[in-house]
Amino acid sequence: MSQLGPDYVRAIAPYQAGKPIAEVAREFGLDEAKIVKLASNENPFGVPESSRAAMAQAAADLGRYPDANGFELKAALSARYDVPAEWITLGNGSNDILEIAAHAFVQRGEAVVYSQYSFAVYALATQGVGGRAIVVPAQDYGHDLDAMAAAIDADTRLVFVANPNNPTGTFIPAAKIEAFLQKVPANVVVVLDEAYNEYLAPEHQFESSQWVRKYPNLVVSRTFSKAYGLAGLRVGFAIAQPAVTDLMNRIRQPFNVNSLAQAAAIAALNDKAFLDKGAQNNAAGYRQMIAAFEELGLQYVPSFGNFVLVKVGDDEQAGARVNLALLKQGVIVRPVGNYGLPQWLRISIGLPQENATFIEALKKVLG
Amino acid sequence: MSQLGPDYVRAIAPYQAGKPIAEVAREFGLDEAKIVKLASNENPFGVPESSRAAMAQAAADLGRYPDANGFELKAALSARYDVPAEWITLGNGSNDILEIAAHAFVQRGEAVVYSQYSFAVYALATQGVGGRAIVVPAQDYGHDLDAMAAAIDADTRLVFVANPNNPTGTFIPAAKIEAFLQKVPANVVVVLDEAYNEYLAPEHQFESSQWVRKYPNLVVSRTFSKAYGLAGLRVGFAIAQPAVTDLMNRIRQPFNVNSLAQAAAIAALNDKAFLDKGAQNNAAGYRQMIAAFEELGLQYVPSFGNFVLVKVGDDEQAGARVNLALLKQGVIVRPVGNYGLPQWLRISIGLPQENATFIEALKKVLG
Repeated sequence: MSQLGPDYVRAIAPYQAGKPIAEVAREFGLDEAKIVKLASNENPFGVPESSRAAMAQAAADLGRYPDANGFELKAALSARYDVPAEWITLGNGSNDILEIAAHAFVQRGEAVVYSQYSFAVYALATQGVGGRAIVVPAQDYGHDLDAMAAAIDADTRLVFVANPNNPTGTFIPAAKIEAFLQKVPANVVVVLDEAYNEYLAPEHQFESSQWVRKYPNLVVSRTFSKAYGLAGLRVGFAIAQPAVTDLMNRIRQPFNVNSLAQAAAIAALNDKAFLDKGAQNNAAGYRQMIAAFEELGLQYVPSFGNFVLVKVGDDEQAGARVNLALLKQGVIVRPVGNYGLPQWLRISIGLPQENATFIEALKKVLG
Repeated sequence: MSQLGPDYVRAIAPYQAGKPIAEVAREFGLDEAKIVKLASNENPFGVPESSRAAMAQAAADLGRYPDANGFELKAALSARYDVPAEWITLGNGSNDILEIAAHAFVQRGEAVVYSQYSFAVYALATQGVGGRAIVVPAQDYGHDLDAMAAAIDADTRLVFVANPNNPTGTFIPAAKIEAFLQKVPANVVVVLDEAYNEYLAPEHQFESSQWVRKYPNLVVSRTFSKAYGLAGLRVGFAIAQPAVTDLMNRIRQPFNVNSLAQAAAIAALNDKAFLDKGAQNNAAGYRQMIAAFEELGLQYVPSFGNFVLVKVGDDEQAGARVNLALLKQGVIVRPVGNYGLPQWLRISIGLPQENATFIEALKKVLG
């Protein structure tokens, strides 16, 4: 039995999710209501009211399968991003988009390029198809796009680029991305993972969806799990030209996005007030966090997302040790030892009071 | 660009879902409220009230990611099926379970055995990993298990068995399945897909979940999309011994089952009154359907599911022609030409009035 399955599947170490509040409460004997979770880069405001209203309307029909083609949601995305609906692939979160891309474009032995310290699912998706990972060393905790372009070899079929990057929060300006896209061969698909795009300040925003018109090998991946507050519902999407979109939809499970998620996403997509509120909270929370880190003399990586990576010690156990001490105080953050960053923790930005609770707990642990 | 992706991905013909009501209304200029959909083997009662109440409770937390380990749902399934929680894999519908099994156990060139006229996703999941399909001719529209056992070759890694089978509705008694399991080599995984199990009459029921204790290569797959009425929410699960479950969970996307689906499934699982009501409606509706088919002199396959396969003509266009004529009358059923059954239609069993509307429309078309 231990020889069941391809060797590359047996070699996978599953994704380590942020600990759910209920699990921490069970494990440490804590009151759920008093636990602060800043571990999964979720939106501290939760689901927008506009999405709740849309879900209530959609709830009547939940005995039916979801629309496998996502007609209404694709129409809304098409209008918002000014691309034809036929250029859109829906995903069960953008995690699904990343997995679909690996399955659609890579087979055993073919290569996938991504950066050191980039999102863990790139490695998992690559391993899941028996792909060969080409992990390019990071530069200042972010992507070294020149080195990534140079690393593309004859067997490379896919490149993952995260912008902003998770878990480090680094950002690549538009001009650099476009210079990179110009260097990538046409037979190599680039997935530009913009899960945190909506947190960018206006001066950093650019319409990457429009690059898709110029680059037939580009897939722009977005999610409703972060700024839109729909992590629990699972919906993401990709924008790409028809040839690429067609292949991705051959791999996509037909009912991958549930009915409530489709309805909620349509409402959230155009809820500018909710996005603005989230962006303001995030900017203020980021300042609150880094002020505390500076006061404590802690190194952090300047972040463009809704989280910040902070170095909590110099030894290889620092991240795990501080994480455990925080958990015992009812504060859940994310250790990133599995990213090769055992001295660091990734902290999601929450509401002001949640941030303050974390900062207080951190001071207690370190002081 | 046309050479992107593995050849086996480019060869996939995507799943053809039942047409959504909204799409038929748009296409044929009909009033949505007057359309009857008997196309996707959905529960005509929709979501149970118990699930709606559970979802309302879970709704507060939807900004959070779902519990990646499904602690509460697995605990409920563990109690209901008397297996350890560690033997359970959660799926985004049982479609996801079928795909996960293919990815976890089969690589390019390895073989998958399944029956002619069995569920379309077996072929898709096999193609998606570049597997070699061994399609065993059906016997009286159902599985020929002796031939399937004989078809297993040295490269076979996976067998799909549907019981009852979709789209034909055939059923294999417990003793025959167990005799088959005894013949299958230990290094070949058998997925026993019981999506329609809950519709079986008590005398046909058997606890296949307990076979998992005896057969370490057995995966029992179930869904909440049919008898439990949760098709729009997406939740299914698999029961298997730890070695097999461990591999499936390496392939599973961590947040594949959304939070509302997990909550709704826990409630539905133990809603015996809802299941009983559905089973009674289904049994009465089946009698209503076959009485009409007999009156019209139409051949049908005796069904053990919540649908029935009926032959609507002798020419190769009969299914498509009658389907189109029914659509124009606002009745959506499922053509099964893609299953190699172009003379047949698959009709889901609905509420008495829905069945009557279909029967009336069918009589008009055929008469």
